[in-house]
Amino acid sequence: MKLELLNKIRAENPVIFNLSNYITVQDVANGLNAIGASPIMPSAIEETKEMLQISSGAAINMGSFRSTELPYIEKISQTANELGVPLVMDPVAVAMPYRQKVITDLLTRFKFDFIRGNAGEIAALAGIEWQAKGIDAGDGSANLAEVAKIAAQRYNCTVVLSGPTDYISDGVRAATVTHGTPLFQIHVGSGDMLSSLIAAFAAVSKEDYFEAARMACLVFAITGELVAQELDAEQPGSFIVNLLDKLHLITPKEIAEQIAMGD
Amino acid sequence: MKLELLNKIRAENPVIFNLSNYITVQDVANGLNAIGASPIMPSAIEETKEMLQISSGAAINMGSFRSTELPYIEKISQTANELGVPLVMDPVAVAMPYRQKVITDLLTRFKFDFIRGNAGEIAALAGIEWQAKGIDAGDGSANLAEVAKIAAQRYNCTVVLSGPTDYISDGVRAATVTHGTPLFQIHVGSGDMLSSLIAAFAAVSKEDYFEAARMACLVFAITGELVAQELDAEQPGSFIVNLLDKLHLITPKEIAEQIAMGD
Amino acid sequence: MKLELLNKIRAENPVIFNLSNYITVQDVANGLNAIGASPIMPSAIEETKEMLQISSGAAINMGSFRSTELPYIEKISQTANELGVPLVMDPVAVAMPYRQKVITDLLTRFKFDFIRGNAGEIAALAGIEWQAKGIDAGDGSANLAEVAKIAAQRYNCTVVLSGPTDYISDGVRAATVTHGTPLFQIHVGSGDMLSSLIAAFAAVSKEDYFEAARMACLVFAITGELVAQELDAEQPGSFIVNLLDKLHLITPKEIAEQIAMGD
Repeated sequence: MKLELLNKIRAENPVIFNLSNYITVQDVANGLNAIGASPIMPSAIEETKEMLQISSGAAINMGSFRSTELPYIEKISQTANELGVPLVMDPVAVAMPYRQKVITDLLTRFKFDFIRGNAGEIAALAGIEWQAKGIDAGDGSANLAEVAKIAAQRYNCTVVLSGPTDYISDGVRAATVTHGTPLFQIHVGSGDMLSSLIAAFAAVSKEDYFEAARMACLVFAITGELVAQELDAEQPGSFIVNLLDKLHLITPKEIAEQIAMGD
Repeated sequence: MKLELLNKIRAENPVIFNLSNYITVQDVANGLNAIGASPIMPSAIEETKEMLQISSGAAINMGSFRSTELPYIEKISQTANELGVPLVMDPVAVAMPYRQKVITDLLTRFKFDFIRGNAGEIAALAGIEWQAKGIDAGDGSANLAEVAKIAAQRYNCTVVLSGPTDYISDGVRAATVTHGTPLFQIHVGSGDMLSSLIAAFAAVSKEDYFEAARMACLVFAITGELVAQELDAEQPGSFIVNLLDKLHLITPKEIAEQIAMGD
Repeated sequence: MKLELLNKIRAENPVIFNLSNYITVQDVANGLNAIGASPIMPSAIEETKEMLQISSGAAINMGSFRSTELPYIEKISQTANELGVPLVMDPVAVAMPYRQKVITDLLTRFKFDFIRGNAGEIAALAGIEWQAKGIDAGDGSANLAEVAKIAAQRYNCTVVLSGPTDYISDGVRAATVTHGTPLFQIHVGSGDMLSSLIAAFAAVSKEDYFEAARMACLVFAITGELVAQELDAEQPGSFIVNLLDKLHLITPKEIAEQIAMGD
């Protein structure tokens, strides 16, 4: 396991470029900062290249894009590809028809190194029937590890299907992260935070993207699990505050201990 | 009283469509999620219809609209009307001239089932003199119950004039909610949260919109009141954190008890 | 010292106009509200003048502007100048080439009464070599008081170079604020909040802008320092919550006592 990636983020403070949605952007920025990365969220297409040139990772979140922003999203994607900046797609609500068209088009034309979504979103990208509900994961009976694998093969990338259990696949290798807390589902933006953290772990991973994705999921899930254990009840407001605190303070040792306790 | 509407939100998790302002959007999303609804906040006009088709309520907040967004706002309004999705208008700072023109035009051309604003905003819509101050409620001597009634009759909808006392009117019936806390006025976005909660209550109300508005105000006001009672001082930062916690946890029984204590 | 400016903000509740970035806008609004000002954040160019007419201060934050917003930013700047509304520029990441061009153009064409930035940003505006890193302050060996003075002279305004020590200069006078906490650097948006607070202090300062800037820095730094002293560890999530609480509650007496303790 490469828990030292967490130390590397804190030592190197990689700049992470984000095209975020306007709903959860502050949590995403605070989460990246708390863990030790340095978020930038520019909006002017004119500065795409110069901002990506100083970035070691990038994440595009489709939670609330305008169609007029698509040229900017394409420019980010193309430039990240040219510069070799690892790129994460967060395909929010991609089961909806318009988004499915837009997002699969982006995934086809550009190289995304990662896709991070919930079960409904990854199933939609894998072409598997699933009952998604708006931005929520929804229900279905598919084998989620298989869903992640098919999506990874289709888009030639590392897929993170996140939820109560996270399924990570690069089309060949597979891993799961069984830690976490139901509070991640209650707080809006948990998934968006994870997508950007994947970019931060990728930035320091020397292109071992499967391991980067696995470590991002593990660190995030265990941080949330430890925070939830300290709460008196299901408190979604306190959860995000304490999650930011703990993302800043958590150590590889604490994470290893929590893993050991679960075995 | 229909406190069971709260249970229905939690059982049905209605999808609530929001056109939010960029200032308080995260609180609005977290508030909806905390109470048990499922917020969506798309920005692409192309997906208006498909997103409204999965929604059971919708709220439009005019806090920070660009004039270039008006076609999108009109599309949301028209489509919600066609689909019969209950629609809430939050006419932020409508006493200002440009907004008064834009918002009254929207209210005239489309059917809004609810308007939720502070005293200055509802007075401006009712055509009554009032000393509003920017986005704040301002001061005036009008009979606020009458102000709410006139606005409700003028726009043929249920009006919520919120403040230290909330006045609800559908033009015929009238109700007040006297619970609350001054901290609602200190935290930016309390009104925006309430407007979206009204859409959530409307979604499960079987078109009893007067009762939906009243229950939204009552649940929100009592939740805030209970949270404020636990604080050591006027702490606006802690207030919003604890408000999200309590919106998730509060029960009809607690609400009924708090009402009984006030009698 | 003019600590009574804090009381004046609370007595007069000045309306402060903000063009914010979408990342930290909620913190900025909550910070202004907590200290006693009244934030407005309109986005429609059509209402620029009427909104500035009710404003006593204005702040423009360049954290995430789109190039299509530049006409709006110019309109705000020009109108604020015409109306005599004190104007703050927050030149986020101005060391980057595109921003340097855009922001120096704005600073040249319009009268900004204040510039508030970190060391890397103010050095870039002063034309001094500095190793900035994205939006972070970066490192350099320049004399920071001198950097602030040169920038103030170049743009004929009051400059706040904020960081572990804040350097304030109007080109002639100089002051420092040595209070604070490293948590300001960990929480995204601390600088953005300070820029808007400067506008609030300017609003009640009777055009003594040097003193307004110094008091804004002092109140903000000591508030953060007091909050940090109460935390168990470096907790960036709890920090912002408690900072909003304390901005609302802090008194000139507490500030004076904290200054005395440091002497």
